[in-house]
Amino acid sequence: MATTPEADMSDLAIASRTVLKPISEIAAAAGIPESAVEPYGRYKAKVDPSLLPGNSARRGQVVLVSGMSPTPAGEGKTTMVVGLADALAATGAKTMIALREPSVGPSFGMKGGATGGGQSQVLPMDEINLHFTGDFHAITSANNLLMALVDNHLHHGNQLGIDPQRITFKRVLDMNDRALRTVVIGLGGSTDGVPRETGFEITAASEVMAVFCLATGLEDLRDRLCRMTIGYSYSKKPVTVDDLGAAGALALLLKDAIKPNLVQSIAGTPAFIHGGPFANIAHGCNSAIATNTARSLADIVVTEAGFGTDLGAEKFMDIKARYAGCAPAAVVITATIRALKMHGGVSKEELGDENVVAVRAGLPNLARHAAIIKKFGIPPVIGINQFAKDTQAELEVVTDWAAANGIACAVADVWGQGGAGAGALAETVLRAIESPADFDYLYSLDQTVEEKILALAREIYGGEGVEYSVKAHRMLEQIHANGWDRLPVCIAKTQYSFSDDPQLLGAPSGFRLQIRELIPKTGAGFIVAITGALTTMPGLPKVPAALRMDVDGEGKAVGLS
Amino acid sequence: MATTPEADMSDLAIASRTVLKPISEIAAAAGIPESAVEPYGRYKAKVDPSLLPGNSARRGQVVLVSGMSPTPAGEGKTTMVVGLADALAATGAKTMIALREPSVGPSFGMKGGATGGGQSQVLPMDEINLHFTGDFHAITSANNLLMALVDNHLHHGNQLGIDPQRITFKRVLDMNDRALRTVVIGLGGSTDGVPRETGFEITAASEVMAVFCLATGLEDLRDRLCRMTIGYSYSKKPVTVDDLGAAGALALLLKDAIKPNLVQSIAGTPAFIHGGPFANIAHGCNSAIATNTARSLADIVVTEAGFGTDLGAEKFMDIKARYAGCAPAAVVITATIRALKMHGGVSKEELGDENVVAVRAGLPNLARHAAIIKKFGIPPVIGINQFAKDTQAELEVVTDWAAANGIACAVADVWGQGGAGAGALAETVLRAIESPADFDYLYSLDQTVEEKILALAREIYGGEGVEYSVKAHRMLEQIHANGWDRLPVCIAKTQYSFSDDPQLLGAPSGFRLQIRELIPKTGAGFIVAITGALTTMPGLPKVPAALRMDVDGEGKAVGLS
Repeated sequence: MATTPEADMSDLAIASRTVLKPISEIAAAAGIPESAVEPYGRYKAKVDPSLLPGNSARRGQVVLVSGMSPTPAGEGKTTMVVGLADALAATGAKTMIALREPSVGPSFGMKGGATGGGQSQVLPMDEINLHFTGDFHAITSANNLLMALVDNHLHHGNQLGIDPQRITFKRVLDMNDRALRTVVIGLGGSTDGVPRETGFEITAASEVMAVFCLATGLEDLRDRLCRMTIGYSYSKKPVTVDDLGAAGALALLLKDAIKPNLVQSIAGTPAFIHGGPFANIAHGCNSAIATNTARSLADIVVTEAGFGTDLGAEKFMDIKARYAGCAPAAVVITATIRALKMHGGVSKEELGDENVVAVRAGLPNLARHAAIIKKFGIPPVIGINQFAKDTQAELEVVTDWAAANGIACAVADVWGQGGAGAGALAETVLRAIESPADFDYLYSLDQTVEEKILALAREIYGGEGVEYSVKAHRMLEQIHANGWDRLPVCIAKTQYSFSDDPQLLGAPSGFRLQIRELIPKTGAGFIVAITGALTTMPGLPKVPAALRMDVDGEGKAVGLS
Repeated sequence: MATTPEADMSDLAIASRTVLKPISEIAAAAGIPESAVEPYGRYKAKVDPSLLPGNSARRGQVVLVSGMSPTPAGEGKTTMVVGLADALAATGAKTMIALREPSVGPSFGMKGGATGGGQSQVLPMDEINLHFTGDFHAITSANNLLMALVDNHLHHGNQLGIDPQRITFKRVLDMNDRALRTVVIGLGGSTDGVPRETGFEITAASEVMAVFCLATGLEDLRDRLCRMTIGYSYSKKPVTVDDLGAAGALALLLKDAIKPNLVQSIAGTPAFIHGGPFANIAHGCNSAIATNTARSLADIVVTEAGFGTDLGAEKFMDIKARYAGCAPAAVVITATIRALKMHGGVSKEELGDENVVAVRAGLPNLARHAAIIKKFGIPPVIGINQFAKDTQAELEVVTDWAAANGIACAVADVWGQGGAGAGALAETVLRAIESPADFDYLYSLDQTVEEKILALAREIYGGEGVEYSVKAHRMLEQIHANGWDRLPVCIAKTQYSFSDDPQLLGAPSGFRLQIRELIPKTGAGFIVAITGALTTMPGLPKVPAALRMDVDGEGKAVGLS
């Protein structure tokens, strides 16, 4: 790879020197009438889908960017989405980007922003990474109003007979704050609520976020809010938001947030950035409304799902596409030489050194990801996200293998060159979406929860079977008793391995998936199956990134990455 | 008062049928260049004060709207601000409104919105009362990031030696949630933080909100954030945000929020609505930046301070005007026949019946409020907020008494007629601001905290002296030891009486003010002195207003009041 002049510039520096177009111009070019555009500052806008003309006519094709099992640093899926979309737009195809909104909490810890990198970023980077248009705040408010109403109900006589020890819903903050994981509230005396143990989750992990991202409109949003289970009564019956009469107020708090947010890439490609659910406890993709609104405006919508194909892409198919009717026409599997080497047995410290043998040894991981996509009847395209240290010999190991196995594959330098670095990948993707697809879900909703999980364990993860903890067994009984069996399943599993053991790299087999717990999310409309440890409230590291952040004399952001 | 056609319409209904001007038009008419305007939707914008031309040249005069000791329903100060400003604008004076942002928490309980009423409202009412431009959310985030950093510091070795039992700063939510008043956090095990008792406050009660509202610019904001005390070390030394190195990240979260929000009244008068601190634990006025930005654009700025002159107006003078240099040229004391009757001994149930004797018996309360304003060297103007049930005879009791005592006074029907109902009041105010004023603070910063509180108790409240609890005595020693004596004092006291006993109506004397607790707010820059009970986290009633709220089929708000 040629060293670009920007090789030593930070993402924020590259973003800051970009001259943005007014958002009204971006909207107009995307075919969005002015009446549907609600500006938030000069370079962000909310778009009201109900004010778009011919909303139902166009149905753009979805290109889903997924990935192989990642290294802890991530393989640059968002950067790939942006670069690929810019390249597709450069071919003349009417293209839009649809991405998740970043959670602000983790950005104060270690994680960088979630707006891509290098020449492939969505902008304004600092605003998107901070409060953006306030959607996360609206979701936090709605969630916490619900919980204030629940505890108020307990305080004022508890007419519904809610068992304070069986309230499963929690309060949320968009913050990494481990001290809030387990708390006792309602202390202080008889005027200060009913004491009980509970906890806080990060907003991205909340069911309200999942509901927000799966709703196909305001009415569907309200219906899903109604169906959320907040806990159980003394007689062990589920208590819903509808029972509390709270869905109207929650919908009111979300009525503006639910409109997709329009921004632009460095190259000026229009992008919806909307909703940001976790990819473990939830399904990990941007809102259904954003994806479908983008499809009504563009011929190709490039979007992303969290983690590898085993997690994000599978959930995109079996959960999001099922509810929102947006099955992909092609899936790009983001691969890196670094991740292949890791799966080939190289230690973290040596990932920077050339190692053709290790790259080859890592291919089974990538092969299984391609096989997963084919299982859904969709053509996979391997997109190698090129890094400066990758050697030609290493890259050729992958491209030669792909060619030999009839898998579409292209190398893209999206970080260094933006869309210009993804021309070959764009051509490959265009060919893929024209090839005949035969999409189907992995499982049918009529199967039991156990059958669905077994199908996932065997056909997606490559395991032999499933084992349930005592607690999970109890929850299965409850799920059957409450008639929640028809819901799809959302597996919370490590992203580092196909199995539930993060140490099992490559393409492991023979393992049995351990289900520790099952959590019904009756509003979002899926059953979360938890394997291994799961944190829904991250913590901050010893030296948080927040301590490097500041504003300069002109009021500009410093220290965001 | 003639019955207007709108007499039976709700505020939301009146607001909804108003055709708003695009915010760009309102901005242009106010002399704000397009480059300084950041739109938030079509009818809200943030204004960047640093991009205003001749920012320092114009210095509009401030008209402060305060009130007599209110009834629990409030006397309509915000409605008075809007109606008066519309009337002043109608005389040709270049006028702007500066008001607090409503807190969303209380609106889900009982309280209506805080955007005025009837024909005297600022709009868009529903948006202002919900998330508005996200300022409260930004303040919530900044506050809670600080607390996450504090608990993270404890978790990772506690290098500063912070005593977990002496952390005074709390987390906040913009929610009425009594169950969060007293909580124990950090439970769950060794990876989940350090257990300690703490609580949540409502965002409006937070010191970050007070800092936000007293800062004169981004740099001053950052400096004040640095000076906030989060608690004490094991060696009982104050620990500040500066010690933690967190001020930069907090300022970053507030950098956009700190720009004033522009909206319009029904009549099209430009209004800044910005910041919303409580009037007991804090100083109860909109941001200094909004007031001073309005003064740079208009000849008259009509603004409001919480509760009666003894609380809000006094704090406006001794705290806000001292820090921001915005002493009023005139103060309007909002009076109602209803409140006068209450102070004249009439029970709540009979306030609707004509009672001339009771109105006269209530005048000593109003008289003392007028005397308080004169004490600051500012001309008081009594503005009677007319209600439909007021009789001519009742109104004349007040106007005759005012005339006999040389106090400017006018009747205004702002709810029913907007600016058209406040013509006489506007003329009276214009005369008042032209009369020579001789502003001075009640106390000097060189006085001790005890001397300042004694001056307030005697000269403002009409009491005889001050008594301190054992706890307050201990805090006084700490204040002296830490050199915080030069800070002004912010009294948290009932708004219903001049004394600290809400039952003592009229113009009580002879009492001794009971100081229960002193809380240094070293970032905001005042010492809170608490008399009686003080709740910084309200609760919800048995049937919360939230349960009536919803969105209709067109996505419009239902049930806001």
